[in-house]
Amino acid sequence: MKLAKRVKEMRESEIRKFMEVSIRPGMISFAGGLPSPHSFPIKEIERLSIKVLKNEGTMALQYGATEGVREFRRTIAKRMNKKLKIKCKEENVLITTGSQQVLDLVTKIFVDPRDLVVVEVPTYIGALCSFRNYQSKFLTVGMDSEGMKVDELESKLREMNKKKRERIKFIYSIPNFHNPKGITLSMERRKHLLEISKKYQIPILEDDPYIELRYRGKTLPTMKSMDKEGLVIYTSTFSKILSPGLRLGWVVADGELIKKLSMAKQGTDLSTNVFSQYIANEYIKTGLVDKHIPKIRKMYKKREEVMLESLEEYFPDGCEWTKPDGGMFLWVTLPKKINTKKMFNEAIKRKVAYIHGAAFCVDGSGYNEMRLNFSNQDENNIREGIKRLGNLIKKKL
Amino acid sequence: MKLAKRVKEMRESEIRKFMEVSIRPGMISFAGGLPSPHSFPIKEIERLSIKVLKNEGTMALQYGATEGVREFRRTIAKRMNKKLKIKCKEENVLITTGSQQVLDLVTKIFVDPRDLVVVEVPTYIGALCSFRNYQSKFLTVGMDSEGMKVDELESKLREMNKKKRERIKFIYSIPNFHNPKGITLSMERRKHLLEISKKYQIPILEDDPYIELRYRGKTLPTMKSMDKEGLVIYTSTFSKILSPGLRLGWVVADGELIKKLSMAKQGTDLSTNVFSQYIANEYIKTGLVDKHIPKIRKMYKKREEVMLESLEEYFPDGCEWTKPDGGMFLWVTLPKKINTKKMFNEAIKRKVAYIHGAAFCVDGSGYNEMRLNFSNQDENNIREGIKRLGNLIKKKL
Repeated sequence: MKLAKRVKEMRESEIRKFMEVSIRPGMISFAGGLPSPHSFPIKEIERLSIKVLKNEGTMALQYGATEGVREFRRTIAKRMNKKLKIKCKEENVLITTGSQQVLDLVTKIFVDPRDLVVVEVPTYIGALCSFRNYQSKFLTVGMDSEGMKVDELESKLREMNKKKRERIKFIYSIPNFHNPKGITLSMERRKHLLEISKKYQIPILEDDPYIELRYRGKTLPTMKSMDKEGLVIYTSTFSKILSPGLRLGWVVADGELIKKLSMAKQGTDLSTNVFSQYIANEYIKTGLVDKHIPKIRKMYKKREEVMLESLEEYFPDGCEWTKPDGGMFLWVTLPKKINTKKMFNEAIKRKVAYIHGAAFCVDGSGYNEMRLNFSNQDENNIREGIKRLGNLIKKKL
Repeated sequence: MKLAKRVKEMRESEIRKFMEVSIRPGMISFAGGLPSPHSFPIKEIERLSIKVLKNEGTMALQYGATEGVREFRRTIAKRMNKKLKIKCKEENVLITTGSQQVLDLVTKIFVDPRDLVVVEVPTYIGALCSFRNYQSKFLTVGMDSEGMKVDELESKLREMNKKKRERIKFIYSIPNFHNPKGITLSMERRKHLLEISKKYQIPILEDDPYIELRYRGKTLPTMKSMDKEGLVIYTSTFSKILSPGLRLGWVVADGELIKKLSMAKQGTDLSTNVFSQYIANEYIKTGLVDKHIPKIRKMYKKREEVMLESLEEYFPDGCEWTKPDGGMFLWVTLPKKINTKKMFNEAIKRKVAYIHGAAFCVDGSGYNEMRLNFSNQDENNIREGIKRLGNLIKKKL
C-alpha cells in the first residue's frame, strides 16, 4: 500500500490538538473559531425545516444539481448584487459544502505541485490545509494595520523572473476582519491589489466570511465588486450568519471558472446538502437573515468591547493587540521574550486557551503572538479569561 | 490565469447532458440514478429534525469534528458489526459528504498523476470523475454474470513488471447490484479478489451503496468482513436508504487510513453536515431505518419485476439484459448493429430516456448497450417506457 506524494505535505491542522485541550470542562477558550451557539436561530431553522419538508420535501431530499439548487443560486446572486454591488447572475454562483470547499476546489483547478499561492503572514490555517493538499508552495506577504502589504507583494513580483511568476496561481486574501489578525484591508490597498492582479494576470481568491459582522465604520467595497477583469474569485459562507453545521458556502466568479469549479465538485461530493440549501434559501427570501444578523452583531460587538477593555485592564505594558472593526478574532503581540507556544501548557493549567501565533505563519514567525476569539465566550468569561491570561503573562515577564 | 494540468483530464460527467434532456415534461426517464421520491421518509425526517433541533440544536448547528459526530460514528460502527459482521470501532469510521466524497478522498491520498486504478468495464461514472480529478490512469477488467473477471485481473497483474504493478493504487469494485450492470460479485470471486489484494498488497475500494436493497436471495458477505489484512476500504451511503439530499456517506477502514482520510477531508470541507448526521443517527437508533428499508425494497422489487416483464414483452429477439437481485439498475445489450448513443435522440423524440453504455466504459466498448434505472418510475410508466423503447429498437433492426 503506497500513498500519494501529496500525503507527505498534508498536515493535521496544527491547531487541532490545541482545540481538543481547549474544550475541557472549566476551560475558558479563546482558541476556537466558533460562532456563539446563542447566535444560531434554532427556532427559525426548525420552522423553516418543517416548511421546506412540507412544501418541497421530495426535492429537498433528492439529489441536487452540482452547481446548487437553482432558486438558491438566484437568491444568492440577487443578494450579492443588492448588498455588495457584485454584478453577477445565477451562472456566476456555485453553492459549496462550506467556503472551505471553495478553497479546496480553487486549489484543485489551479495548482500543480510546487506552484505558488500568495498568502498573508499570518493567515487562515484551514486555507493552508487546502493549499498543501495539492502540494502548493507559498509566496508570503506581511501585514500591517492596513492589511496585506501590497507594496511588498509588488516588489517580490517585480524581482521574480517571468517563468517563476507564472507559477503563482492565485493571491489568497481575507480582506475584512482578517482571520487571525482582525485587520481590514484598506481601500487603497484593495485597489492596488486589483492593479497587481490585472498587471500580472494573477487571480485573487477573496475569502470574505465575516463581511456581515461589522460592528463599526462603513463596509468597504469588495474587490469582486471592483473587478473588471473577471480575475476575482469571491467566496463567503453561511457559517457566521446562520449555522456552520449546515456546511453552506458559495463562490462568485467568472462563468467559465464556475463551470470548471463545478466540474471539479462533481467528482468531489456530487452536490451540496440539498435540504440545507432549501433552508438557507428560505432564510434569505423570508427576510429572516436581515432580522437576525443585527442580533449577532450586537452580541459580538459587546463581546469584543469587553475583550478590548479587559486587555487594557489586565495585560501588562509591552503587549499590543489589534482592534478589529468586526469579525471574531483579534491578534495579540507579546514582548519578544515570551513564546506563546511554550506558554500554552501553563495557560491550560490556569484554564484559559488561545492559539499561538506561529500556527498561522508559514514563514516561521509569530512565536510571540496569539489569536484570541471573542465570539464564543460570554462577557463574564471573557473578563475572567483575559485576567487569567494577563496574570500569566505578567508572571513570565 | 493558468489552470492546473489535471483540469485537462477532468470531464463533465458524460451523462449530465443526457440527464438534462431526460427531465423534460412527459419524458419517461430510465436515465437517472435517482431513488424514488416516494422512498423518502419525509414525515419521519420532519419529526427527527424537530427532535434534534429541540434537544441538541446548538450541537447540531455548530461546527463538527472532521471525522464525524462521535455518537454517529459509534452508531454506524455498531450497525456495521451487527448487520454486516464488519469488525470495526468508532475510530475505523469516517463520516463523509456522501460516498462520492470517499471516492475523492481515497484517490486524494493514494493517487499521484499517472498512477493506475483498477476499474471494471463498465463502471460507475461518478467514480471515474473522482479518479480523473487526480490524473489517474485505468487498468480495466471485464465483467461477466459473476461480476468482475478476477482471473483476467490476475493475469494482467502477472504479466506486468513490478514497477508498473506498484503504480496500481487500488482496485475499485461495486460488488452488489453493480452500477450500471446490476450484477453481484460471486462468493468465489470475492475470495479470489481478496487473495489478489493480499498477494500484491493492493487495497480494494469496496463501494457498496445498494447492499440493503436486495430483493431476492441471500446477502453475500462483504469483502471487508473477510478482510484480515486491513486492505479493504469499505464505503456506503444513506442516499439509497434515507435521502441523497442529506449527502451522507461513510467509510470503514484501517485506523491509520482513517486518520489520513480525515486529514485530507479537513482541507476539503472541514466536516460533513452536522444537522444531517444527527438526523441520520436518530434514524438508525430509533429503529426507523429497519422499518423503512423493507418498504423501499418492496417498491423497487415490484418495479424491477415490471421492467423485466416488459422487456420480455416489448424488446425484440437478439436483445439481452441482466436480472439483478437488487439495486436500481439493469443493463441491456442490443444487437451489434444498434448504437445506443446515436439512437438516443430518437428515443427522446418518443419521450423515453436511458444512458448509453459507452458512457460507463473507459475502454471504448459498450456502444450497443444501455443502462436502465427502474427505481424512479412507477409501474405504469415502466411498462409504457419499455414499450416505447422496444418499438424503437424493432424499427432500427
